[in-house]
Amino acid sequence: MDNPDLLAVAVVGDGEAETGPLEGSWKGISFLNPARDGAVLPVLHLNGAKIAGPTVLGRKPADEVRSLFEGHGYEVIEVSGDDLPGMHHRFAGALGHAYRTITGIQESARSGRKYHRRPRWPMIILRSPKGWTGPSEVDGVKVTGTWRSHQVPLAGVRENPEHLQLLENWLRSYRPEELFNEGGFPTDLVLAANPPRSLQLSASAHANGGRLTRDLDLPDFRSFAVTVTHPGTELVESTRRFGDLLAEVYQRNPQTFRLFCPDETNSNRLGSVFDVSDRAFMERVTPDDVKISSTGRVMEVLSEHSCHGWLEGYTLTGRHGLFATYEAFAMVSASQTIQHSKWLEEASRLSWRAKVPSLNVLLTSTAWRNDHNGFSHQGPGLIQIVITHRGEVSRVYLPPDANCLLAVADHCLRSRSYVNLIVIDKQPQLQWLPIDQAIEHCARGASIWTWAGNDDGSREPDIVLACAGDVVTMETVAAAQILQEHLPQLQVRVVNVVDLMALIRPKDHPHGMSEVLFSELFTDSVNVIFAFHGFPGAVHQLIHGRPNTDRFHVRGFIEQGTTTTPFDMTVKNRVSRFHLVMDAIHNSPHTPRGSADLLTWCARRLHEHEGYIIEHLEDLPDIKNWTLSPQPPTH
Amino acid sequence: MDNPDLLAVAVVGDGEAETGPLEGSWKGISFLNPARDGAVLPVLHLNGAKIAGPTVLGRKPADEVRSLFEGHGYEVIEVSGDDLPGMHHRFAGALGHAYRTITGIQESARSGRKYHRRPRWPMIILRSPKGWTGPSEVDGVKVTGTWRSHQVPLAGVRENPEHLQLLENWLRSYRPEELFNEGGFPTDLVLAANPPRSLQLSASAHANGGRLTRDLDLPDFRSFAVTVTHPGTELVESTRRFGDLLAEVYQRNPQTFRLFCPDETNSNRLGSVFDVSDRAFMERVTPDDVKISSTGRVMEVLSEHSCHGWLEGYTLTGRHGLFATYEAFAMVSASQTIQHSKWLEEASRLSWRAKVPSLNVLLTSTAWRNDHNGFSHQGPGLIQIVITHRGEVSRVYLPPDANCLLAVADHCLRSRSYVNLIVIDKQPQLQWLPIDQAIEHCARGASIWTWAGNDDGSREPDIVLACAGDVVTMETVAAAQILQEHLPQLQVRVVNVVDLMALIRPKDHPHGMSEVLFSELFTDSVNVIFAFHGFPGAVHQLIHGRPNTDRFHVRGFIEQGTTTTPFDMTVKNRVSRFHLVMDAIHNSPHTPRGSADLLTWCARRLHEHEGYIIEHLEDLPDIKNWTLSPQPPTH
Repeated sequence: MDNPDLLAVAVVGDGEAETGPLEGSWKGISFLNPARDGAVLPVLHLNGAKIAGPTVLGRKPADEVRSLFEGHGYEVIEVSGDDLPGMHHRFAGALGHAYRTITGIQESARSGRKYHRRPRWPMIILRSPKGWTGPSEVDGVKVTGTWRSHQVPLAGVRENPEHLQLLENWLRSYRPEELFNEGGFPTDLVLAANPPRSLQLSASAHANGGRLTRDLDLPDFRSFAVTVTHPGTELVESTRRFGDLLAEVYQRNPQTFRLFCPDETNSNRLGSVFDVSDRAFMERVTPDDVKISSTGRVMEVLSEHSCHGWLEGYTLTGRHGLFATYEAFAMVSASQTIQHSKWLEEASRLSWRAKVPSLNVLLTSTAWRNDHNGFSHQGPGLIQIVITHRGEVSRVYLPPDANCLLAVADHCLRSRSYVNLIVIDKQPQLQWLPIDQAIEHCARGASIWTWAGNDDGSREPDIVLACAGDVVTMETVAAAQILQEHLPQLQVRVVNVVDLMALIRPKDHPHGMSEVLFSELFTDSVNVIFAFHGFPGAVHQLIHGRPNTDRFHVRGFIEQGTTTTPFDMTVKNRVSRFHLVMDAIHNSPHTPRGSADLLTWCARRLHEHEGYIIEHLEDLPDIKNWTLSPQPPTH
Repeated sequence: MDNPDLLAVAVVGDGEAETGPLEGSWKGISFLNPARDGAVLPVLHLNGAKIAGPTVLGRKPADEVRSLFEGHGYEVIEVSGDDLPGMHHRFAGALGHAYRTITGIQESARSGRKYHRRPRWPMIILRSPKGWTGPSEVDGVKVTGTWRSHQVPLAGVRENPEHLQLLENWLRSYRPEELFNEGGFPTDLVLAANPPRSLQLSASAHANGGRLTRDLDLPDFRSFAVTVTHPGTELVESTRRFGDLLAEVYQRNPQTFRLFCPDETNSNRLGSVFDVSDRAFMERVTPDDVKISSTGRVMEVLSEHSCHGWLEGYTLTGRHGLFATYEAFAMVSASQTIQHSKWLEEASRLSWRAKVPSLNVLLTSTAWRNDHNGFSHQGPGLIQIVITHRGEVSRVYLPPDANCLLAVADHCLRSRSYVNLIVIDKQPQLQWLPIDQAIEHCARGASIWTWAGNDDGSREPDIVLACAGDVVTMETVAAAQILQEHLPQLQVRVVNVVDLMALIRPKDHPHGMSEVLFSELFTDSVNVIFAFHGFPGAVHQLIHGRPNTDRFHVRGFIEQGTTTTPFDMTVKNRVSRFHLVMDAIHNSPHTPRGSADLLTWCARRLHEHEGYIIEHLEDLPDIKNWTLSPQPPTH
């Protein structure tokens, strides 16, 4: 995409062609504009077998296979046989035909004639025997043309003289005496077949995309900031602000930035991008359609696999992008996130591999606010995956509000060769930090929110209320306020964590905060009630090795959910403000007067909540409309 | 499958049809035998749009769509329009035609004529307007036939009288006065359209498959046991024994058990099943093929998604099965594992839902022994996922040898409504426990292996070496032996964990071992070096809340891997016997004479290892051929 002169030849084995994500990827041409994009020439290599048996496409009638790919929209070129050099000539002919067709499509599209419909791109179906030119029969059993040639056709060459002879015959069949001179070097005949250096595959910068990577032209993210005069008083859809930023990024980088999203750009409040770019679509568009055209560059396809794969290709060839998805659906493509992390991990060890733009993943429509969906849509599992990757590549951010999101996103869009996971909901949410404080907070990764607690820093607090994630941050600040109102004698500290990797020991992750900072925030011995966006176990594994981790009582998503009110999700998962208050009392080193009454009050409020939502199908007004009092309560 | 009289109608929206796994699933008919299986009638409902825009299949030319599904092997029946009652009649006609075609195929196959080729099953493509019969236009913008009708076409009925009027018009268009009598009850006309109770969907036992579930006829797993006269002296491919058991299960339960595996049954050493059943395949079979036919019942398709989905359907309709896959590839279908867990979790709260057979997942070809593959194949991520699910459903077993595998598998095959994850490698591996001890060990979930340590139980040991997982168990036993040889003064206890959930507190998981047992095994304060099969963080999160968890030093897969020797994988991830010995010394409460020498020795051995594998491409002979000395060393 946006790489008009690049032609990628993709060889697809008939084994891998059997997988779902690959079957889903043939429709990529419905999004490919020949005027400004390059092309892919798929070569479906049907040798008929995989590791242990035949394949579906290898054994279906040839007319059905042709019909299938014509149905996918391709011009099918078939090459079949086992004769030599006939196969070489026919395959070269097929490549030539395909190449002329592709360039013809591109020239026509680029000559100025506007394309309204997807062209019929060529593909090649190559049928050749599996294990072709290898030993045709071993131990009296057929090998060539069967699954037996998949791995090691001659297993016993060390012990079995007959196998050794078969191996020698096989290798001699390539006529090494014509290929190598007496010194063992390739002959001139062989060398003459090499392309000039500039045309060698390894010389293509597209195969080492970091060499082509240029920084994005990014606007000053501060200009998209929310004005926060007092924390916790104003509702904003944070991702909408981010969408405004993305629109500007699109505008300034028309050939090097794309958003990939399974049909949820508007739902995720990122719709501002449509002010500057349509959705890309090469199929029929009707007058009733909006923001969709062949010249659009926002990528929407209802396939997390295709979105993820396209973004991988886009970044690996040096361009920048973002994959935005409902949080729970990110597990659909988790295997791709893992494999891309592995690629980046290993690439970082190769000095000649230039760093590529990061794989940026925005998870929104989170577990805590799927008001109209429910349990199937409630799953913060990708955090659980990304934290297992090496510190060189893995980054997880949980911005609690719009300004933190902007600061984090700016950092991610500038970064290289990371997997950046950003998790924040799309619903209207309270805003906490003015932009300058947000920038400082995100740079530190975690800070004490002094205005949210009553711990003056002169001594250790009685309890630390920590939080990471937007909804649980609100519950934590609300819990701290309740505690201050009811038990002003209790010294409460509120710590917010935006960079999850800051919790890890610095020896295990470059973002890991120093031991001194960790102790400054969390003390060495005070109990910590940690309200976490994801599965509680994630925090336990991240803080391992920090002082006295048994004192961390983590609350989070414990796989309780349904279609319910926002506050009820926190109740069901025992991380509501009332649960946090009760946890604070139970874990305080002393029990101030009024504690028992406050426990009773919390239980009563929870009871009241349950009755109210059953009757009214929405949260109690004082919960729904809760804001942080501008003045801390005085007693 | 194996449900000859069941016809399932699957309605597929054109949004979901865009996903990869769904595109991959059309090929299911290549594995469906009309003589003994039921049928699926897919209805692809192309209304043209998803949440926010058009779909590919909805906008491709109709002849391409037809060609696509004919290419998938279907007879395409098209119904299209927006006229009423014409559409009802035409759709009823299409259903009738499809039904007759399906029953015709089945009758022909069941009349005794042998089927050699897949029949052309019918499917229906239904094109009707999206939001059909809803408000056609709202606020001057077209709604019917567009994505705008996807969710709530009239958002402002509470505030906007015009919207309220549109809503009323819409609802009145269904002529409620003909449908309900004055008391608000359905009229006789409506009731007459209901099928008799026995034909109602909710009366089908297939929709509540637990009602149809019968226990498997299982052989005595003890009869497949390995004879272990002395632990750690004999190499056996553990999964091969399990394959022998599975063959017997197949034999005894010809209609109620199937194995689902992406082309790896033989690779995973489960090939004994082919002695009693071929692979299922309805496409062309050649004389060179082996163990594959239309009457086969082993399900091999190179799609984890299809394997997982088929097994889900099989168990949900009351039959039993196992999904066996390379460990790392299990992440491909992780999202399905999650959603099935969620289904089981919620189903357990509905008293009328009878329990169904468990979803059994065998992960083999593990991270530690992918000798010929490498880093992409090294990923124990699914453990990380399953441990986040509710205790009601989640089970993770790490049998260290064949006999433990047999005991665990027998338990899993008898169980109901769990997700059972069993993780064990396929390569030849040392055997530890005679079958009776294995049964007891698995029932306890974790035990002290007294023969592996030198801790006599009279007092607390100096160090506990714990392990979970086959390869790391071998390293742990070897480390304990090294310590006993070199530092006999050090009291070493070896604890093996086979049921990972036993580590969790009993209040959080029904398998969680009691506090007393936990302290009996791990003490309350002695340092524990825990060698774990998966990511170390998993153990940290599981043991949270146990006494003094900071003393647990967990080693495991830390995302270091490549194509290398088996022992080098443990070296790269710092969980080799030498690393464990060094960890033990560093975490021992006292430092026996000889400790420094032993540290030096370990470093030297690691150095020697590195040099040797580079030269010989295999492990040092004393590592490769290591067995446990039958007599503990005396000093």
